[in-house]
Amino acid sequence: MPRDTDHLAPEPVTVLGLGAMGTALADAFLAAGHPTTVWNRSAARADALAARGAVRAATPAEAVGANRLIVACVLDYDALQSVLAGTEALLAGRTLVNLTSGSPEQARDFAARAAGHGLAYLDGAIMITPPGIGGPHATLLYSGAPEALARHRATLAALGEPVDLGPDAGVAGLYDAALLGLMWSALSGWLQGAALVGADGVRAADFTPVATRWLAGAVAGFIDRYAAQVDAGRYPGDDASLDVHVAAMEHLLHAARARGVDTALPELLARQAGEAVAAGHGADSYARLIEVVKK
Amino acid sequence: MPRDTDHLAPEPVTVLGLGAMGTALADAFLAAGHPTTVWNRSAARADALAARGAVRAATPAEAVGANRLIVACVLDYDALQSVLAGTEALLAGRTLVNLTSGSPEQARDFAARAAGHGLAYLDGAIMITPPGIGGPHATLLYSGAPEALARHRATLAALGEPVDLGPDAGVAGLYDAALLGLMWSALSGWLQGAALVGADGVRAADFTPVATRWLAGAVAGFIDRYAAQVDAGRYPGDDASLDVHVAAMEHLLHAARARGVDTALPELLARQAGEAVAAGHGADSYARLIEVVKK
Ligand SMILES: NC(=O)c1ccc[n+]([C@@H]2O[C@H](COP(=O)([O-])OP(=O)(O)OC[C@H]3O[C@@H](n4cnc5c(N)ncnc54)[C@H](OP(=O)(O)O)[C@@H]3O)[C@@H](O)[C@H]2O)c1
Ligand SMILES: NC(=O)c1ccc[n+]([C@@H]2O[C@H](COP(=O)([O-])OP(=O)(O)OC[C@H]3O[C@@H](n4cnc5c(N)ncnc54)[C@H](OP(=O)(O)O)[C@@H]3O)[C@@H](O)[C@H]2O)c1
Repeated sequence: MPRDTDHLAPEPVTVLGLGAMGTALADAFLAAGHPTTVWNRSAARADALAARGAVRAATPAEAVGANRLIVACVLDYDALQSVLAGTEALLAGRTLVNLTSGSPEQARDFAARAAGHGLAYLDGAIMITPPGIGGPHATLLYSGAPEALARHRATLAALGEPVDLGPDAGVAGLYDAALLGLMWSALSGWLQGAALVGADGVRAADFTPVATRWLAGAVAGFIDRYAAQVDAGRYPGDDASLDVHVAAMEHLLHAARARGVDTALPELLARQAGEAVAAGHGADSYARLIEVVKK
Repeated sequence: MPRDTDHLAPEPVTVLGLGAMGTALADAFLAAGHPTTVWNRSAARADALAARGAVRAATPAEAVGANRLIVACVLDYDALQSVLAGTEALLAGRTLVNLTSGSPEQARDFAARAAGHGLAYLDGAIMITPPGIGGPHATLLYSGAPEALARHRATLAALGEPVDLGPDAGVAGLYDAALLGLMWSALSGWLQGAALVGADGVRAADFTPVATRWLAGAVAGFIDRYAAQVDAGRYPGDDASLDVHVAAMEHLLHAARARGVDTALPELLARQAGEAVAAGHGADSYARLIEVVKK
């Protein structure tokens, strides 16, 4: 059993999988002073990490047996399954933090099997690309074994801000999908805007600081306000009604068409808003459209 | 002519149009100590402002004649045109800041006619709802008469952070459309995510702080990085390629369908990304999709 004083020294950790992401994870642990054991299917990918101070394990079993805390980041759940095959007898009493992307259903299934081995299982989602690991915008979402995150929080914080999403192991993967969907929508909305102003000679480098200030300030503020409306199922449009949005959407569509800019995205949004107005919800806020999405 | 010492006292200003927005503008000027003359077509809307210290003008001509700086915010450009009809002889030497929403073409047309009257014309777009005027997220975009913003910047700053978009009067309206398009995309992306996690029992109030942190931090960071790619017309996908995005989009679509959540928005984004991959751009970044939007 670890003694209490062990909490004062950086906790040792094992990293399974040294792709672009696994390598960034292992480097962040090393940078924070954690003794780090690494393993990868193609052994050569451990060379540079070993040169930077990592301990190289020859097999998954050696890597799993080395430490109480094991962080895995491979291609998908099937790959992780094959990595862990044969290590089952070693798992009891350890914690597996699985940062491999997958569906909520895969995570829940894995959690159930981990419990059968006496393994504490924490599913995670990494909301940043490898160069951002350990940086100011790095957020990692965790759900699963209730005490595992509390126990290893200080260690995992080396990767980025840990967000605790509770005991259902499937929730981190579900947030992952939801947040990526938000990202694609925002990226495409920004590209649409950049194309529109670009048609009149404005550079993306000039438009973008205004766009990100708007997104991070006012738009994030609208979203905050609408969250309460979504939970309440009531959507008062005091600040800006769907009627007003639909009128302004027509201006955008007109400006885009006049410049030969694609309108598929604003047309979809205008159609959904227009349907809500036609159904009698013109005085409601934009948050009303969740009823369209929920069907 | 105003004397130099006049710069030290809060500049007097006229506000034409006292709807929800015009009232908020006049209140912000009053709060910042500017002597404020107001006029509205329906005179009763000036009552409360007069009680708070505004000077009430009986006619548009009286309001225009009262001050060198005139801020207008009415329904649309036609309404502003009818308000100003008959004041033409009074306009020379003054500055009109038009915060009425309209198209870039309307703004350019107005600027040309203002020049004919010796009126300095600044077109503006208000990127906040009335309760936010003067607050921390209030941004107002201005374009038009080169020296007008510099001259009246301290006064206009009472409304919110002024952003100077240069001498083409149409640019503020174009940014307005582009930024609203970004807002609708982000709001719909967030609603999509809220519906997805909501299907598994997560409240919007729990999902939203994670979502806005993600949007304001990592996503705004990706947008910043991609702006340079858009201007360069080259889209290296070192951090995350369209191939990777398309695979992750399939996970989102699967999770949404499994929960009966509408997929129109993610399907559109996946189709655009998929077409770029099919055209051989799978190793490029998401910014490549501007080529789809520009057509
Ligand atoms: N990159 C990102 O921006 C990012 C962001 C968030 C989440 N993620 C997630 O992180 C995970 C890893 O991504 P990555 O970017 O590191 O990918 P990557 O660079 O392609 O690396 C894939 C890793 O998986 C291993 N692997 C694949 N199939 C395997 C198998 N059958 N058995 C054992 N190992 C196998 C590879 O080992 P070999 O070296 O032997 O091939 C390699 O270590 C993925 O689930 C990804 O979705 C990535
Ligand atoms: N509200 C927002 O969140 C927001 C945000 C950004 C931009 N804007 C823009 O700000 C402008 C005003 O919006 P608002 O929210 O204040 O609208 P509003 O509350 O509906 O007020 C409309 C104003 O326009 C006046 N008006 C309409 N037709 C007129 C005419 N023919 N002649 C003279 N005056 C006329 C109205 O006068 P009466 O009182 O006599 O009817 C009233 O003062 C619009 O262009 C809007 O797009 C609004």
